Amino acid sequence: MFNILDILGTVAFAVSGTLAAIEKKLDFFGVLTIALVTSIGGGTLRDLLIGNTPVSWLQNLNSFYIIMGSSIFAIIFRARLSIFRTSLFLFDTIGIGLFTLVGLEKGVNINLHPLICISLGTVTACFGGVLRDILCNEIPVIFRKEIYATACIAGGFVFFGLRYLNLPEDIIYLATAASIITIRILAVLKKWSFPPIEMK
Amino acid sequence: MFNILDILGTVAFAVSGTLAAIEKKLDFFGVLTIALVTSIGGGTLRDLLIGNTPVSWLQNLNSFYIIMGSSIFAIIFRARLSIFRTSLFLFDTIGIGLFTLVGLEKGVNINLHPLICISLGTVTACFGGVLRDILCNEIPVIFRKEIYATACIAGGFVFFGLRYLNLPEDIIYLATAASIITIRILAVLKKWSFPPIEMK
Amino acid sequence: MFNILDILGTVAFAVSGTLAAIEKKLDFFGVLTIALVTSIGGGTLRDLLIGNTPVSWLQNLNSFYIIMGSSIFAIIFRARLSIFRTSLFLFDTIGIGLFTLVGLEKGVNINLHPLICISLGTVTACFGGVLRDILCNEIPVIFRKEIYATACIAGGFVFFGLRYLNLPEDIIYLATAASIITIRILAVLKKWSFPPIEMK
Repeated sequence: MFNILDILGTVAFAVSGTLAAIEKKLDFFGVLTIALVTSIGGGTLRDLLIGNTPVSWLQNLNSFYIIMGSSIFAIIFRARLSIFRTSLFLFDTIGIGLFTLVGLEKGVNINLHPLICISLGTVTACFGGVLRDILCNEIPVIFRKEIYATACIAGGFVFFGLRYLNLPEDIIYLATAASIITIRILAVLKKWSFPPIEMK
Repeated sequence: MFNILDILGTVAFAVSGTLAAIEKKLDFFGVLTIALVTSIGGGTLRDLLIGNTPVSWLQNLNSFYIIMGSSIFAIIFRARLSIFRTSLFLFDTIGIGLFTLVGLEKGVNINLHPLICISLGTVTACFGGVLRDILCNEIPVIFRKEIYATACIAGGFVFFGLRYLNLPEDIIYLATAASIITIRILAVLKKWSFPPIEMK
Repeated sequence: MFNILDILGTVAFAVSGTLAAIEKKLDFFGVLTIALVTSIGGGTLRDLLIGNTPVSWLQNLNSFYIIMGSSIFAIIFRARLSIFRTSLFLFDTIGIGLFTLVGLEKGVNINLHPLICISLGTVTACFGGVLRDILCNEIPVIFRKEIYATACIAGGFVFFGLRYLNLPEDIIYLATAASIITIRILAVLKKWSFPPIEMK
C-alpha cells in the first residue's frame, strides 16, 4: 500500500513543480530542477529530521525516474493541462493529501508521539511546495490567505481519531487523504480563511 | 541547569516569532508556525550538523508545549507587550544570549574545538531568527547594520576565556549570557556598527 | 590527491563569496560569514544528505582556517581583483568544477548509482553559490539565463564515461574539471542558453 501513496504523491508534486516553473519561463533543465525539488523536498527534510540517512532518493533511483517521467509528460501536455486553469492547484492538493499520510506513517513507524507525527506529516507535505515557491519567487503557499497547512493538521487528527477506533488501515488512509483534499478544495472554493491577529 | 537555559531561550524566541508574525498580520496558525520555526530552527540545524537525530523536538513534546503556551500567551497580551516598542528586540536578544550558551555546551560535550563550538553556538542562536525574518520577508537580522552575530562570537570567547580560568560553571554561564545581551543592547542603543568594506 | 581538490575549491568559493559580499557593502563580519557559507554550504548539504555527521567542517579546523585566510586575502587585494571584472565569475567557475568532482567521489565511495552521484556532485557544486546569492539578495546563479548546473551534470557524464574506459584517475579528474570549467566559460562568452519552455 505504502509505496503507491509515495509514488502518486511524487507524481503529483512533480507535475505541480513543472507547471509552476513553466509559468516562470524557465528552460528545460530549470523546469526539471524545480520538479525534482518540489517532489523530494518534503521527504528529504523529514528524513534528515528523523535521521534516516542516506535520504531515500539517494538509495534508489525510482523516485528519480518517476519525477523525470512525470515532468516530461507534463511538459509535453502542458497546453492541455492549462485548459484547466486549476491543474497546478489540483496536483498540489493531491500531493499534500498523500504526502501527509507518508509522513504520518513514518512517524508512527518509529513510535513518535501523535502530535509529533502530525507535525512530521505537515512538514513532509508542505516543505516541497514552500521550496518550489521560494525558488519561483512566489509568496510561499502556506502563507497565502487560504487554509493550507491547517488541512494537513486536520487530516492528522482524522488519522489518529480513526486509528483510535481501530478501523482497518485502508479506510483510515482513504479517509485521511480525502479529508485533507476536501478541506483544501473547499477552503479555496469557499474562500475559507482565518482572520489575521490584529494589533488592538 | 541546562534545561532551564533551553526552556527560557525557547520561550524568548517563541515570543519574538509571535510578535513578528502578528506585525505581518498572519492568521492564528501562521503565527504559531512562525513561533515554532523561530524557536526550534537554530537547535534543529545544530542537531542536524552534529548528527544528533531524530532532532530533539521530535523526541519529546516539552518544547512543543512550551512554544504553543508562550505563543498563545504573547497573542493574548500582545497589546500590553507592544507598549514597549522594544519587546520583540528584547525577547530576541535574550534568546540569542541563551541559545549561544546551549550551542556552546553541546559542542563542548562532544569535544569539538573551541572555535568550532563558537561557530555552533552562533549558528544555534542566529538561525531561528534568520528563518523568522526570511519567512516574514524581512532582511535577515544578521545582515542589518548593527552588531548581531558578532555579539554571539564575543560571548563564545568570554565563555572559553572563563573556562580557561577554571571559574565555577554558573559564573561562566551567567557572564557569557550577560556579555552577549549587553553587547547587543549597547550596539543598538549606541548604534555601534562596523564600517562596510569599500571597493577602493 | 583528493584533499587538494577540496582545498582549492574551498579557496575559490571563499574568494567568490568575499567579492559578492563586498559588492553588497557588508561589514567585515558579514563578508566573512558569506565567504564561509559559500564555501561550506554545498559540502554541508551533501554530508547531511548522505548522513556523514558531524559534518566535515565540524571535525577539523582546516577548512575554517583556509576560508578565513582566503577571505582576508581577497579583502586586502580586492582592488587588484576587481581590475578583472570577471574575477567573481572565474573563482565561482573554478569552484563548481572542483566541488562537482568532490561530490562525485564521495558518492562513488559509498557505492551510489552513477546518476545519483551526478546529482550529488551537482548539489555539492551549486548549493554554496545558491546560498551566497540568496543571502546577497541576488537571483540564484542556477536560475539565471546561462548554463550552470548543466555544466556540472555534463561533467558528471564525462567522469563516468572515462571511468568506464578505465583511464587513470588523474586523467579522469583533470578531464572532468576541465570540461565543466570550459562549458561554463563558453556558455557565458558565447551566451549559450536553452530556450524557455513556452506555454503554447
